[in-house]
Amino acid sequence: MIEAHDWNDECGVFGAVGHPRAAELAYLGLYALQHRGQEGAGIISYDGRRYHEHKKLGMVSDIFSASALRKLHGASAIGHTRYSTTGSTILPNVQPLVAKLRQAVVALAHNGNLVDARMARSVLEDGGAIFQTSMDSEVILHLMARSRHPQIERQIGDALDRIHGAYSLLLLVGDTIYAAKDPRAIRPLCLGSLPGGGWVVASETCALDIVDAGFVREVKAGEIVRVRAGEPPRTVRHAPADADATCIFEAIYFSRPDSHLFGRANGASRVALGHRLAAEAPCPGGEVVISVPDSSNAAAQGYAEASGIPFGHGLIRNHYIGRTFIKPTQEIRDLSARIKYNPVRDVVAGRSVVVVDDSIVRGTTVRKLVAMLREAGAREVHFRVSSAPIIAPCYYGIDTPDASELIAAGSDQEAIRKLVGADTLHYLSLAGMQQAIAGERACGFCTACFDGAYPVPIIERTDKKILEMS
Amino acid sequence: MIEAHDWNDECGVFGAVGHPRAAELAYLGLYALQHRGQEGAGIISYDGRRYHEHKKLGMVSDIFSASALRKLHGASAIGHTRYSTTGSTILPNVQPLVAKLRQAVVALAHNGNLVDARMARSVLEDGGAIFQTSMDSEVILHLMARSRHPQIERQIGDALDRIHGAYSLLLLVGDTIYAAKDPRAIRPLCLGSLPGGGWVVASETCALDIVDAGFVREVKAGEIVRVRAGEPPRTVRHAPADADATCIFEAIYFSRPDSHLFGRANGASRVALGHRLAAEAPCPGGEVVISVPDSSNAAAQGYAEASGIPFGHGLIRNHYIGRTFIKPTQEIRDLSARIKYNPVRDVVAGRSVVVVDDSIVRGTTVRKLVAMLREAGAREVHFRVSSAPIIAPCYYGIDTPDASELIAAGSDQEAIRKLVGADTLHYLSLAGMQQAIAGERACGFCTACFDGAYPVPIIERTDKKILEMS
Amino acid sequence: MIEAHDWNDECGVFGAVGHPRAAELAYLGLYALQHRGQEGAGIISYDGRRYHEHKKLGMVSDIFSASALRKLHGASAIGHTRYSTTGSTILPNVQPLVAKLRQAVVALAHNGNLVDARMARSVLEDGGAIFQTSMDSEVILHLMARSRHPQIERQIGDALDRIHGAYSLLLLVGDTIYAAKDPRAIRPLCLGSLPGGGWVVASETCALDIVDAGFVREVKAGEIVRVRAGEPPRTVRHAPADADATCIFEAIYFSRPDSHLFGRANGASRVALGHRLAAEAPCPGGEVVISVPDSSNAAAQGYAEASGIPFGHGLIRNHYIGRTFIKPTQEIRDLSARIKYNPVRDVVAGRSVVVVDDSIVRGTTVRKLVAMLREAGAREVHFRVSSAPIIAPCYYGIDTPDASELIAAGSDQEAIRKLVGADTLHYLSLAGMQQAIAGERACGFCTACFDGAYPVPIIERTDKKILEMS
Amino acid sequence: MIEAHDWNDECGVFGAVGHPRAAELAYLGLYALQHRGQEGAGIISYDGRRYHEHKKLGMVSDIFSASALRKLHGASAIGHTRYSTTGSTILPNVQPLVAKLRQAVVALAHNGNLVDARMARSVLEDGGAIFQTSMDSEVILHLMARSRHPQIERQIGDALDRIHGAYSLLLLVGDTIYAAKDPRAIRPLCLGSLPGGGWVVASETCALDIVDAGFVREVKAGEIVRVRAGEPPRTVRHAPADADATCIFEAIYFSRPDSHLFGRANGASRVALGHRLAAEAPCPGGEVVISVPDSSNAAAQGYAEASGIPFGHGLIRNHYIGRTFIKPTQEIRDLSARIKYNPVRDVVAGRSVVVVDDSIVRGTTVRKLVAMLREAGAREVHFRVSSAPIIAPCYYGIDTPDASELIAAGSDQEAIRKLVGADTLHYLSLAGMQQAIAGERACGFCTACFDGAYPVPIIERTDKKILEMS
Repeated sequence: MIEAHDWNDECGVFGAVGHPRAAELAYLGLYALQHRGQEGAGIISYDGRRYHEHKKLGMVSDIFSASALRKLHGASAIGHTRYSTTGSTILPNVQPLVAKLRQAVVALAHNGNLVDARMARSVLEDGGAIFQTSMDSEVILHLMARSRHPQIERQIGDALDRIHGAYSLLLLVGDTIYAAKDPRAIRPLCLGSLPGGGWVVASETCALDIVDAGFVREVKAGEIVRVRAGEPPRTVRHAPADADATCIFEAIYFSRPDSHLFGRANGASRVALGHRLAAEAPCPGGEVVISVPDSSNAAAQGYAEASGIPFGHGLIRNHYIGRTFIKPTQEIRDLSARIKYNPVRDVVAGRSVVVVDDSIVRGTTVRKLVAMLREAGAREVHFRVSSAPIIAPCYYGIDTPDASELIAAGSDQEAIRKLVGADTLHYLSLAGMQQAIAGERACGFCTACFDGAYPVPIIERTDKKILEMS
Repeated sequence: MIEAHDWNDECGVFGAVGHPRAAELAYLGLYALQHRGQEGAGIISYDGRRYHEHKKLGMVSDIFSASALRKLHGASAIGHTRYSTTGSTILPNVQPLVAKLRQAVVALAHNGNLVDARMARSVLEDGGAIFQTSMDSEVILHLMARSRHPQIERQIGDALDRIHGAYSLLLLVGDTIYAAKDPRAIRPLCLGSLPGGGWVVASETCALDIVDAGFVREVKAGEIVRVRAGEPPRTVRHAPADADATCIFEAIYFSRPDSHLFGRANGASRVALGHRLAAEAPCPGGEVVISVPDSSNAAAQGYAEASGIPFGHGLIRNHYIGRTFIKPTQEIRDLSARIKYNPVRDVVAGRSVVVVDDSIVRGTTVRKLVAMLREAGAREVHFRVSSAPIIAPCYYGIDTPDASELIAAGSDQEAIRKLVGADTLHYLSLAGMQQAIAGERACGFCTACFDGAYPVPIIERTDKKILEMS
Repeated sequence: MIEAHDWNDECGVFGAVGHPRAAELAYLGLYALQHRGQEGAGIISYDGRRYHEHKKLGMVSDIFSASALRKLHGASAIGHTRYSTTGSTILPNVQPLVAKLRQAVVALAHNGNLVDARMARSVLEDGGAIFQTSMDSEVILHLMARSRHPQIERQIGDALDRIHGAYSLLLLVGDTIYAAKDPRAIRPLCLGSLPGGGWVVASETCALDIVDAGFVREVKAGEIVRVRAGEPPRTVRHAPADADATCIFEAIYFSRPDSHLFGRANGASRVALGHRLAAEAPCPGGEVVISVPDSSNAAAQGYAEASGIPFGHGLIRNHYIGRTFIKPTQEIRDLSARIKYNPVRDVVAGRSVVVVDDSIVRGTTVRKLVAMLREAGAREVHFRVSSAPIIAPCYYGIDTPDASELIAAGSDQEAIRKLVGADTLHYLSLAGMQQAIAGERACGFCTACFDGAYPVPIIERTDKKILEMS
Repeated sequence: MIEAHDWNDECGVFGAVGHPRAAELAYLGLYALQHRGQEGAGIISYDGRRYHEHKKLGMVSDIFSASALRKLHGASAIGHTRYSTTGSTILPNVQPLVAKLRQAVVALAHNGNLVDARMARSVLEDGGAIFQTSMDSEVILHLMARSRHPQIERQIGDALDRIHGAYSLLLLVGDTIYAAKDPRAIRPLCLGSLPGGGWVVASETCALDIVDAGFVREVKAGEIVRVRAGEPPRTVRHAPADADATCIFEAIYFSRPDSHLFGRANGASRVALGHRLAAEAPCPGGEVVISVPDSSNAAAQGYAEASGIPFGHGLIRNHYIGRTFIKPTQEIRDLSARIKYNPVRDVVAGRSVVVVDDSIVRGTTVRKLVAMLREAGAREVHFRVSSAPIIAPCYYGIDTPDASELIAAGSDQEAIRKLVGADTLHYLSLAGMQQAIAGERACGFCTACFDGAYPVPIIERTDKKILEMS
């Protein structure tokens, strides 16, 4: 299970061109991508003459009032929703970023993380650059500003040639969007076509669905695509790319179950993970399979199907919990586990319960869940995890704890079982996991958090606060 | 399916005594009862000397900041969360109500609806009463104020003797809570005991769970219970009650699946409804059973289990939708159906899909869902409803459309099937529905919305605006 | 000098009928009356069918946005601005009050204070009345509700017959305003006519000026006037009144200098006070006369004129100070005196300075001012007060400190001089003060704060919190 | 008279070092400088390790809550209050600006206006600079970033060598403030010493008074002063400066009457202007002298003294008018003149009134005032202006209308008299004005708005929106 604030995708991006209400599409798109980041969001539109911007901390549906949307005129727009707004006290870190370069105003929305941003900033500052935010994405704008090329497309290429890491990037320059992906295609980014003409670009296909756009294709590794009304998306640069290394965790947890990645809906991949898990780690005496809603619903369904053990809704999740939920004070602290989940006694009491979860990060919430199920009468609690043990942090745009806090980095399966208090505990194997997701298809995965094999060398240990001013 | 703003419970209530942070328990309790009303909430506490109040429009987690909670001192508190804040321009209609009577300040939280409030107001006004809100609950305070009895407990009895309808009521008088239920026990209300001493009262057992309180019992029909620190809850009046007529829809839809009612978890009742539905209305060629998440998940599971047709997550629901979600404008109106649900092509494409839903009110959203599933490639769409047709409005505290807008009030099953565009459509029978929920137990149900048999005579047609000033 | 929060008028009222934008007139009127109360304001309008209300804590110009004003439809409206919003935690105390009586909805705006509100509340509660605020004005509504008379005009009369104290009252009943004054006419209230037809009623004539209304007359002692579009204001009751006892402090300090009272502009009265003061308490060696801006500007001008000593702007007042000004913390506390006033060295250095102030309440700020002037180089500081010593609190609608805190209640002139550190200090005599204001005219004054002769017997010591719930 | 939004100083700046609560001093200082700009304000502090910032649109007392101030830790701070927040839709234009240069984080607060900012931006953009605001002050930071000098003091010098115009500048670099003035010393900026050690720098001496700081001296033309705890302010650069050309309008209107400039309190200068005006433009039949409060109070006093005509408070100003005051709608538009000023009939009726005002910009409000006085019964209205006719716009930091809108740019005295409807109208002569302010002292004035003689050549016509992105 991904515990709150433990393992979070940092961003979702969305762009639209050639639609009279581009900002409204961006609003719907960001809303569909809300799970990728809930701390802040912004949209910038261009109406042929002027740019319009609205960005704020909070959830998409709170940020954009009808009147705010009305003011975002224009047929082209990009938007961004972010998980983390690094705690700088003096700089605003909500995207899209906007800046005036000598030829043009450029707005930028970035999902991912650069591995050499710190070094790049330092070099740029030596050259007289002034930084106004602590976001590594700002480096890209400065590199563009320093390019010798008069043409904006070449400036983008110049800038991307100089940086390394994970990036799925949208740049709005007037009525044109440039969509770019890093050479290993670490984060998803796809193109879609609007029924009445016009194009969209989004982090996930679920954002295409909500605006009724048809899926065209993923942006390719190292590609820069020009997206503009009245012409098909055109590749303006195709960098020599290595083999794809797309984040496998997008399929396991981050992306929505109705989004397509690696050739099918993530929901289907998760059912397959459950099937495989049942084969690798059966639970002979299990009497009921339960999920940790909602993220492991599909995997639990798969486990139940393959194992023949009936499924039950054994944990009820309260969806009304907001960003601002007040934690109870000392006196009633021990109740905190119940705020998000409530066990259903009728389903678990007296039974041998198989809990299927998608992953374990720190393990603290798992321990509470196991205890809660026992309190509710579960005779036995068997924990099954539909992914491999997480042993290494992500440096490509996911906000993760240090290795020292990853329960599987320092403990083997038996030790973890004891820590969380389960009767048995089993992870899916790395190979099984890859096979379950790829099926017959050839997929290039980044599995760094499971095996430490980083496809792009880690130059700097990313620390959210590292770029802040001191 | 209960479509937004169509069929909504009006309120949840929660009270706590004998706990140093009573208001914090109320906060957790209201949060667990948030599904019963999302438009406003309030808590009033008493610290032995003074009352403290905080109430506002909005969701529980937005209304109560840490500092707001801190100010709600005291060991006794009641809270209320409401669905509807009737659009009066001059009067604040968020509960708990508070008023100074000659002996005491009294705060009141009410779930339900009086059937003769309008008449009672008119009589009271003739006697010199001044009304400050348009809530029918205010009548109860005026009746108490006019009672000849010097004792507050007798005043409550006097007041309740004079009104008719559905009420599950909490009255906070200093450090004491009086909990009362109407003589037909239409709305739920239960007592719980806190582990460290102290008592709680709540609309549903899920609110007991979140504060770690043990279930003691339901308040009985016509009963007034005095709940006070340091003594067991004591019945101070036991009105001659008719047979119970508890709202069956609480088990079908309103109450949370983890709350207990009619002797078991509502989730278990819903699975049983699914089993029965599969028996009454099988779907021989069905290839996948899907639910309309989250309210029909359990019924769909039951249908899948009993029918042997595999379950699939065919619709993904976006939980980030807030109260303030901006509807897209004209130009992109046809996309609106996708905002709440997105079909998963991999699950439904090319298949004969059995959609299990808990109910149909107006039918408009059902039609959109069916169309959306067909667009996503479903070969056939078979609709199965795990309750009987709704043919009559509720006058006991549920906000319902007029009979003229209830699709089943004017159309038979075949006409409804055509309207929503399904290949087949079947409801559960009324008898089957009652049996599935009662099982072997003797339950007194109110089934008025299914058969028009109102257990308390309807004196006035309730109209939310009818009590407003003119 | 009236020190902040020491001696404050509690309210201003304004009403308009027969103007298509009555609420906008009320807005302008309240803005002109802002000096009578800065803590909260409200307007209620009636559009022939419905009432519309907007009230809030804060300043008039902050409370009413363009959109708030737009919603206050109708040709009749009353408004209220109040100084004090008694700190009740559970009850909203901003006026106008509104309540539904059996015949009609009535809105009420009240300037003044009842001397027997507490007793009246207790009697009413014994009769079954429920109070929703802690404002004594609510008593009036309850007395109306209990009147046996079917006619609203008689109900008002009945209610006013039963209460005692100071009240200048507006009642909005549909499209009619009833304006009433207590039998001693303690607080001002005047009628005006709009150029295009329609009538206004206001606490001061400056509120007539701002809406271009002509002054008609003061409402008389004990009178109830019916003000309605299309007919001249009509006296519906003329209670047997004693001699007028209008608050003399309105002319000295409370009312605006451009408002007319006692037959001329208050500014002219204040110049006359200065003349008289120069005669009674000359300052032979004085070299410059300065005022404590802005309230004593006119008196200082009068003193300078009559004494021949030149006037100088020796203290500059910062008008940007708001209600929310943050006091500096401990470390810089000694600077606090400078926040409101700054002495002008060029004007006072090396000179014998005559400071003319309108009154002294506690004396603490006077002491700081004297010290500040000496620091700025004043050779001598002579204090002259253009009113008599204040020795008794007001019970008729002014928020005053207890007698124990009134510097002149316990000390003679010489003791006060020593306390504030002036070289000489003189008050105007009570007789001189009355003569200066009345001139040749016959005026009935309330001078209770100067001589303790209360024109209406004080039944209860008013304490702002006394009516709060406990 | 300076009509609202016609002729406004753009900014006030304040800095403090060596005081444990530097930000609180800045708060008090900005509050004293509020008249220099009411649209937005900000403070940045440095605590030895980190910077802390708070800036917002609005008035100083609304922007800084107690909790906001508490977070501004540190012993050094600078603040800024601005008049105008140029309406860019995408860039935040509230100062202090902050940016990370290669050696250091630098915060900047600027009062004045550069005459070549546009050109400088364009050159910098060609060199790869990215601009994030449309404020010309940002140019200074970019010039510093591009300086070859490793030392921050030299970088400041380098940057200031390259720009032209009016600037009184504060730069916060860690615990040090650099204060700089342009070579003609157009805007004021003075140094003060705190009683307990530590230094302050402020636009006017009134901001020194409020924090109890002693006046040390004005920053000199072209000087850069380093201000740091524990050492006396040290001149780190003294640019070859031309003769001073300090804005004479600061003494006439902009600066507070209690601030010292040109060797004495501005109030004293204004009295002298009144004396001179009485000599140059007597009004033989005048019966009462009135001011347009508060800005012409001192000049009117001077005129009354010198002419022997008695002074009267003939216009009352409402100080409660806020930034957000809603203008009345069409129907009551003709009332708008009364919102700010109300004439006092007792003072003006039947008399020959001499109105003394400090200046006339567009003339529209003067016309309304004259009409208002006649309506209030003035027999004759004689207008006297205590400065020379304004014929040219300011390019040095004052927000002025185009020459085409300046009434005196196109009309002679008699034409203006007719336009405003006065019986007679006279301006003070330019020579008389300079003499009245300088007295025996040698003062270097900028009088460009009176004679068009611009001390710094105007390279670009400043337009507030000119730097916005397009």
